[in-house]
Amino acid sequence: MTLHETALSAKKASTYLASMNGTDKNSALELIAQELDANRVQIKNANSADIERSKKENLAEPLLKRLLFDDKKIDQTIKGIRDLIELTDPVGKTLMATELDTNLELFKTSCPIGLIGVIFESRPDALVQISSLCLKSGNALLLKGGSEAFETNRILSDIIYKASIKAGMPESWLFLIETRAEVREMLNLDECIDLIIPRGSNEFVQFIMNNSNIPVLGHADGICHLYVDNEADLKMAENLIIDSKTQSVAVCNALETLLVHHSVAKQLIPDLKALLDKKGVRIIGCEKTCSIIDCEEATPETWKTEYLDYILSVKIVDSTEDAIDHINKYGSGHTDSIVTSNKQTADIFMNLVDSGNIFWNASTRFSDGFVYGFGAEVGISTNKIHARGPVGLDGLLIYKYKLVGTGHVRADYSNGTKAYTHQPLKKEFPQG
Amino acid sequence: MTLHETALSAKKASTYLASMNGTDKNSALELIAQELDANRVQIKNANSADIERSKKENLAEPLLKRLLFDDKKIDQTIKGIRDLIELTDPVGKTLMATELDTNLELFKTSCPIGLIGVIFESRPDALVQISSLCLKSGNALLLKGGSEAFETNRILSDIIYKASIKAGMPESWLFLIETRAEVREMLNLDECIDLIIPRGSNEFVQFIMNNSNIPVLGHADGICHLYVDNEADLKMAENLIIDSKTQSVAVCNALETLLVHHSVAKQLIPDLKALLDKKGVRIIGCEKTCSIIDCEEATPETWKTEYLDYILSVKIVDSTEDAIDHINKYGSGHTDSIVTSNKQTADIFMNLVDSGNIFWNASTRFSDGFVYGFGAEVGISTNKIHARGPVGLDGLLIYKYKLVGTGHVRADYSNGTKAYTHQPLKKEFPQG
Repeated sequence: MTLHETALSAKKASTYLASMNGTDKNSALELIAQELDANRVQIKNANSADIERSKKENLAEPLLKRLLFDDKKIDQTIKGIRDLIELTDPVGKTLMATELDTNLELFKTSCPIGLIGVIFESRPDALVQISSLCLKSGNALLLKGGSEAFETNRILSDIIYKASIKAGMPESWLFLIETRAEVREMLNLDECIDLIIPRGSNEFVQFIMNNSNIPVLGHADGICHLYVDNEADLKMAENLIIDSKTQSVAVCNALETLLVHHSVAKQLIPDLKALLDKKGVRIIGCEKTCSIIDCEEATPETWKTEYLDYILSVKIVDSTEDAIDHINKYGSGHTDSIVTSNKQTADIFMNLVDSGNIFWNASTRFSDGFVYGFGAEVGISTNKIHARGPVGLDGLLIYKYKLVGTGHVRADYSNGTKAYTHQPLKKEFPQG
Repeated sequence: MTLHETALSAKKASTYLASMNGTDKNSALELIAQELDANRVQIKNANSADIERSKKENLAEPLLKRLLFDDKKIDQTIKGIRDLIELTDPVGKTLMATELDTNLELFKTSCPIGLIGVIFESRPDALVQISSLCLKSGNALLLKGGSEAFETNRILSDIIYKASIKAGMPESWLFLIETRAEVREMLNLDECIDLIIPRGSNEFVQFIMNNSNIPVLGHADGICHLYVDNEADLKMAENLIIDSKTQSVAVCNALETLLVHHSVAKQLIPDLKALLDKKGVRIIGCEKTCSIIDCEEATPETWKTEYLDYILSVKIVDSTEDAIDHINKYGSGHTDSIVTSNKQTADIFMNLVDSGNIFWNASTRFSDGFVYGFGAEVGISTNKIHARGPVGLDGLLIYKYKLVGTGHVRADYSNGTKAYTHQPLKKEFPQG
């Protein structure tokens, strides 16, 4: 089969998967969990082969670490699937019901999006997580994993697919893509792929976004800001800066640019520098910052940079409005925080900053699906439509309108014979 | 100003517009309504100039009719604005609230999308409707109308903009674009335009969709189907077919392809032909249809054709599954209807057909924002993400997450000092 044919058959499967009931989907998820458990040895062998090959190919240490899929990881993924089983079926929920006229009833009901393309790097546990999320939400899936995890991905997708079919899911709902050429091809299949979710480096996500007509859910940059207002508790500000910057440094919600109100700059920045020095964080500062402490001077590029490293950009601003303008100009719409004791200033900041996550007196590190209580996470989106911020199962759903009549025609309403009643209905769609 | 600079200033205005309260936005809408009323003469003069010029340029009669903006149209648009004022402010609604820990509270709140580009043809009332919808939902707007309505669009946008500024809305929130070159340029401004809504012909919408990285909300084709099942009430089926096809023929939710179960074909089709003949509807039929009645024979192109005319494609199918497959293959995901007395068959059809609007025993002509009770309508979307089917004000909104803490850091949760509580909160975001 060509990739186009594969995608067409997955698309067709998606319509059947969309009508599977929650109990059957949960049985399939349970069987997947059991089969993963039963095939530990084969999974670990495949993973060892990937790791050995990747070591020979000099894969960097952090990537090797992410590639590891041992018993602990297997336990975690199985637990993840069982957590997902506990969630109520997100498909077929009545989101709105309206009587348009007697016996003419409109229902807005949740349904899967259709066929999702997911491209991810390195971590094989992502494959299990994504597949189970798609199954639970009734979406068919084209998956492309990193080539370093080739063997592990192959056995995992094989186990998941076979178990799901055995449990009655429609054939062709899941395909693993194995070559880069197919990814290029996939980006052109806007006729049958409804959404692409890329998980990987900025450059990688940016490439996907620039090279497909298919909607993309995700984020490229995570240039997160923290603004210390003139009415901030400076001790709190220091704690939040240290946590936002250093609690985990190579993640998308880590702090990259600190903005400081000029009236507290001289008091805050020298102490802060001492704290950051201890943590090994280097400061790149604006001209005014450099007049307070000894640090590297910023260039216009500084404010557009996501370091994912022990480096912090620092800029002194004249007002909250300046801080907001800076964030809306240079930020990536990911996560931005204000430290202030003034509720009104916080409100202005939270209303005017155009980002998915806007925090008041809290670390930028909290923007995360698990932290938000969503359980499974699809990713973090900086999109302005559909889904924004951390995205849970909801991001894999859309809705359809079902209208039930008894032979109603529009002419009757156009010629005035009948009139719409437009009464909200307090009932679910009567699923047979 | 270049278009890029215009868009940047509108984008900046959008953040301020996003924080306007409902009362102030309603005052602006009321002032717009009053100014439209006060400037009737100037508006009608501008419209007369457009109509005279368009007549000289031999604009087609239906387009001339749509171009007319007389007192009746002015009354309607003013009424539309006042209806919009009555709707509650859609911005700043708390959609979800969760306690992550003591004094660490997460709020998902509705907010505008940002800067919307709307490109529409002909009807000047669309300009008023779109501008007022964007103002109510807090979105900034770049507008491009049809060149035939040049003078009318200019005076209308001028009145709307000046009245809104007088009422305190932020400058630069609304711009009228007047050249085609600027539309091309607009499609490339994905850096500052968040969503494009094209309203016009299929080719026009398709062109926009193919030539921009900006998300597009709308529909190109409306290839709507009606399937007559073997358990259908054939009298009801005839009524629904006539209404779906002829109640209004040049609209996106008009019937284009009729699918008939083979076991009722011989009984239904000859009678139906007689009825359609009376309405002046020509049938293009599949081979089997042509063996029952005298009609033009279909080609493979037939099933992909949206006529918007007194022509109906007719195909005889073997089963409900065949009908579903046909619709999912050739349909445009707009509106599809089944006629059957069997609830189970209807459920299968409604679950498996992948369209925004799926009807049971009702005319396809009902898929419409006003019919659904949404009041103002943004358009009808065949997208699979964000908004589907008729789109009301909701389609112009997204959300942001606001997190309120008292100095909370993530390290405390990673090292086990604290644990998330994840309790749903029954309260609104405490807006200052």
